Amino acid sequence: MPKRGKKIPRKLAKRAKPILVLLMDVDGTLTDGSVTLLSQSDGSALEIKTFSAHDGQGLTLAATAGLRTGVITGRGSAALRRRCKELDIEFVYEKQGHKIAAYEDVLRKTGAKESEVAYLGDDLPDLTVMKRVGLAVAVAVEQCRGEPGNLAQPVGPRRQRRVADAWDIEGDDLVEVILKSKGIWNEMIDKARA
Amino acid sequence: MPKRGKKIPRKLAKRAKPILVLLMDVDGTLTDGSVTLLSQSDGSALEIKTFSAHDGQGLTLAATAGLRTGVITGRGSAALRRRCKELDIEFVYEKQGHKIAAYEDVLRKTGAKESEVAYLGDDLPDLTVMKRVGLAVAVAVEQCRGEPGNLAQPVGPRRQRRVADAWDIEGDDLVEVILKSKGIWNEMIDKARA
Amino acid sequence: MPKRGKKIPRKLAKRAKPILVLLMDVDGTLTDGSVTLLSQSDGSALEIKTFSAHDGQGLTLAATAGLRTGVITGRGSAALRRRCKELDIEFVYEKQGHKIAAYEDVLRKTGAKESEVAYLGDDLPDLTVMKRVGLAVAVAVEQCRGEPGNLAQPVGPRRQRRVADAWDIEGDDLVEVILKSKGIWNEMIDKARA
Amino acid sequence: MPKRGKKIPRKLAKRAKPILVLLMDVDGTLTDGSVTLLSQSDGSALEIKTFSAHDGQGLTLAATAGLRTGVITGRGSAALRRRCKELDIEFVYEKQGHKIAAYEDVLRKTGAKESEVAYLGDDLPDLTVMKRVGLAVAVAVEQCRGEPGNLAQPVGPRRQRRVADAWDIEGDDLVEVILKSKGIWNEMIDKARA
Repeated sequence: MPKRGKKIPRKLAKRAKPILVLLMDVDGTLTDGSVTLLSQSDGSALEIKTFSAHDGQGLTLAATAGLRTGVITGRGSAALRRRCKELDIEFVYEKQGHKIAAYEDVLRKTGAKESEVAYLGDDLPDLTVMKRVGLAVAVAVEQCRGEPGNLAQPVGPRRQRRVADAWDIEGDDLVEVILKSKGIWNEMIDKARA
Repeated sequence: MPKRGKKIPRKLAKRAKPILVLLMDVDGTLTDGSVTLLSQSDGSALEIKTFSAHDGQGLTLAATAGLRTGVITGRGSAALRRRCKELDIEFVYEKQGHKIAAYEDVLRKTGAKESEVAYLGDDLPDLTVMKRVGLAVAVAVEQCRGEPGNLAQPVGPRRQRRVADAWDIEGDDLVEVILKSKGIWNEMIDKARA
Repeated sequence: MPKRGKKIPRKLAKRAKPILVLLMDVDGTLTDGSVTLLSQSDGSALEIKTFSAHDGQGLTLAATAGLRTGVITGRGSAALRRRCKELDIEFVYEKQGHKIAAYEDVLRKTGAKESEVAYLGDDLPDLTVMKRVGLAVAVAVEQCRGEPGNLAQPVGPRRQRRVADAWDIEGDDLVEVILKSKGIWNEMIDKARA
Repeated sequence: MPKRGKKIPRKLAKRAKPILVLLMDVDGTLTDGSVTLLSQSDGSALEIKTFSAHDGQGLTLAATAGLRTGVITGRGSAALRRRCKELDIEFVYEKQGHKIAAYEDVLRKTGAKESEVAYLGDDLPDLTVMKRVGLAVAVAVEQCRGEPGNLAQPVGPRRQRRVADAWDIEGDDLVEVILKSKGIWNEMIDKARA
């Protein structure tokens, strides 16, 4: 739920308006960056992933608004796949040591131009994609765990700022920024479901 | 445990005094807003939910004081059902994409007037119910995870403030506010059990 | 690991020196106050408990120093019992709606005077015991989750302050306070094991 | 991902440059210091461990750069062993009540001089090793849980500062400090994989 009616900078709105595809990293971006493992008595370990209900709300709105969404991650787990299904996330690329191949696959499958893709990431392997998309947003490394997912707190670190015009839209939700820039936010929140 | 003897504003006390039914959202309200999933080796995932012992203490007091309590949520899990049982939560509505039907069902079952219902929520789908109840409280989106549940930190976001007289009773417990407004708080804390 | 060589107030040292038994609440005291449940596919739910490695270090030191330790809790779980075993916690009282019976059982079993017992708690049901022991410490409700256990952050809320001389020893460890007051802290840290 | 281009103090760089082996404590160092246990229906409990994706990124870079890495811990779990495998951590010493034997075993196996070893720890049992290595870093006890692992937030507590020249390199990553001191940071981030 938006905290205040902060105005979206014109340069940001211009980049956000054409977005048709929203791609995201997982660990540290859709999660709080923790890697949690449950020891099993047979010596193996199962992965636990923690997502944010608020981010989920945003992504559900995105799907309702017709945005196509996807994740590209170096890890992979049943937990992630279930969460993607719950949130109607269309593209799920797991075990991607490098992310650029998956990104180009999305371009092919959607026919979207690079200027129509937004990418949300948080670490070094995200930079290759961030350099190419129309709207690149990096979440803050020093973020508080209070909000386990980071979709609501995108801040651009120094390096990213140089290469990709990261946007300091702290306190806002990336999905909200996109839908507002398209002028369909109010219509969408009336359709919001839990 | 109340942190200080902060006085309850008269307008809030007037709304809180008649409350007979306390309804709540779950994710982000009774939990810290995280959606946690445990990967299973068969490819499925199990849901983990994190509640607050302090909130539980408040809800146990509420039950002792004769308040009827309920949750309305878009998700659903065995974890939630066990917690509701532990806290004597009477109404448990799961998988409610929209919340208004469940709310009206509670009105029918309890015979309570809308002015006798309090609702605690945190996101867009809660607004439809919040607009109708006698006492609507929205928890802070930017809350600290230090206290995993949010019952103790209800703050009204801007939008909610406009539609439903949200109350900024930060640092207090909603149950405490209701019981104090009824003049039965001191009697109840002597009956407190773990 | 102590953060600074803060001096222990004389009145606190006088109460801490005779302590032979250290009793503790569990949820919100030895844990961060969260109640975490894992949904099972058969509809039941299993309890997850989160303790602090630093608290564990303190309690291991306490056992090395000959203090007798115990927990009294309204809940109960295999997780708690395993942790108590790991930390050589001698007295484990689970499912205690009211705590005074367990407390008096400890007095009988140890032969300790009430002035030789310390109690660490965080919520209403702890107050009955806190009113009687020689050293009562209440942890802060508003604590940060950064440090999941609370042993290191005992602060007295208002009500507790009135009834039991709660001590504001924020940033220090209760075990450290007791061992320093006995003059055996330096000897003990040399015996510290992981 | 480094937050700013903060300059590394010359004295720190001099110690960091020769490092060939990076040893670490686990609980409170590679994890947030929580000890999390899942109750099983048979009365046993399984251990859950929470690591940091960002720390993992750093350790993956370390391995890429040819550093040899290891952990020495008083606990032990399948979760830890899986994480070590994921991060190419070569030396895994579990159940080490005292840490010095494992440390000396690493010296023998690697043939490294003590001045070529860095150690990252957070509690009393780490001090014996910290007194001997070339670069000892202690993480902050009061750290925020926002970043579950601590590799990025090494701060020297008072005691450690006296015995081992702990370095206040808050906000930087120890691996980054070492690789920058060796002059190979830029080369390595281009090889970064997820």
